[in-house]
Amino acid sequence: MSQVTCDLTVSLDGFVAGPHQTMEAPLGAGGERLHRWQFEEQDANAAEIAGILEAGAYIMGRNMFAGPGDGPWPDDWRGWWGEDPPYHAPVFVLTSHAREPLEMQGGTTFHFVTEGIESALARARDAAGGKNIAIAGGASTARQFLAAGLIDELRLHVAPIVLGGGERLLDGVGEVQLEPVEVRGTPLVSHLRYKVG
Amino acid sequence: MSQVTCDLTVSLDGFVAGPHQTMEAPLGAGGERLHRWQFEEQDANAAEIAGILEAGAYIMGRNMFAGPGDGPWPDDWRGWWGEDPPYHAPVFVLTSHAREPLEMQGGTTFHFVTEGIESALARARDAAGGKNIAIAGGASTARQFLAAGLIDELRLHVAPIVLGGGERLLDGVGEVQLEPVEVRGTPLVSHLRYKVG
Repeated sequence: MSQVTCDLTVSLDGFVAGPHQTMEAPLGAGGERLHRWQFEEQDANAAEIAGILEAGAYIMGRNMFAGPGDGPWPDDWRGWWGEDPPYHAPVFVLTSHAREPLEMQGGTTFHFVTEGIESALARARDAAGGKNIAIAGGASTARQFLAAGLIDELRLHVAPIVLGGGERLLDGVGEVQLEPVEVRGTPLVSHLRYKVG
Repeated sequence: MSQVTCDLTVSLDGFVAGPHQTMEAPLGAGGERLHRWQFEEQDANAAEIAGILEAGAYIMGRNMFAGPGDGPWPDDWRGWWGEDPPYHAPVFVLTSHAREPLEMQGGTTFHFVTEGIESALARARDAAGGKNIAIAGGASTARQFLAAGLIDELRLHVAPIVLGGGERLLDGVGEVQLEPVEVRGTPLVSHLRYKVG
């Protein structure tokens, strides 16, 4: 049975991105430092990186696919990740603008879902083939799934930096029952894994 | 040589106390759940509890000694902790209202410092006899010491709860250099220990 997981990297003050997010700086001011653990410590964090990449389907918000804003995107927008995105699985993008599926190289196909999070989850569950379903972000999408009680495991990767502003993961999420399952760290990140609900 | 340490328990969303702090509920709504790890898991958290209690001197803000507000306190206010407070060492209370030292049982003496954080730190260093100096809180006091670069080790005890509001530790603290030293957890808390500076 698929578990619904959510991996997010946050600063010690709880931000998933710094202030002043733009198309040119989608992680905001200083936000790129959040993810050093994935690039500079790949061996030490191999288990957590594998945990992100092993899902059978992904769900993401519109902004994670296309950047800040809420209008329709240009039809030739193909995501941030080039022609061979790292997902290698179906990715369901929450949006209010319908669009034909977009098949990329390496097994990634972006599907555009206009019927909301429960519909996206049902489609992802069908597509995942029993593997996990990963809520890939951004923060507001993760928050919606958390608030709806639809996440089984929240995996926070806490970078040892203070961003001082930006988008917070947990603001307004309401009551959430969390049980620590594992905690582990490296010089660039502390991994906090929680069972939810 | 004394190290300056700061142990604080925070919710997963970064609050040291819940919303609506009052004299009757100094930890705010839901805030008492932050500290379950110290009372319900004493054996599992013995090292961290000892780390808090081994200091040779403590520094705390006015509100931690006397509750919310900024006026003078009644001269007969003797803190929250009864006649034998858990510190068993000199405690320097930052305040704008001078007062004679208050000697309690068990080795705790409250000294009232009106000259600011650096003066309090100098007096605490003299009193600590080479043991650590603990910044005991609350959040705004910890933030002042952090922002001034005066803390050597920040020990965050992250409770697996979402408070949704209250007083945040790191808001407005500015740039802080943090290096994770140790991370460890129990069902009721995740301990994140950082070297600062």
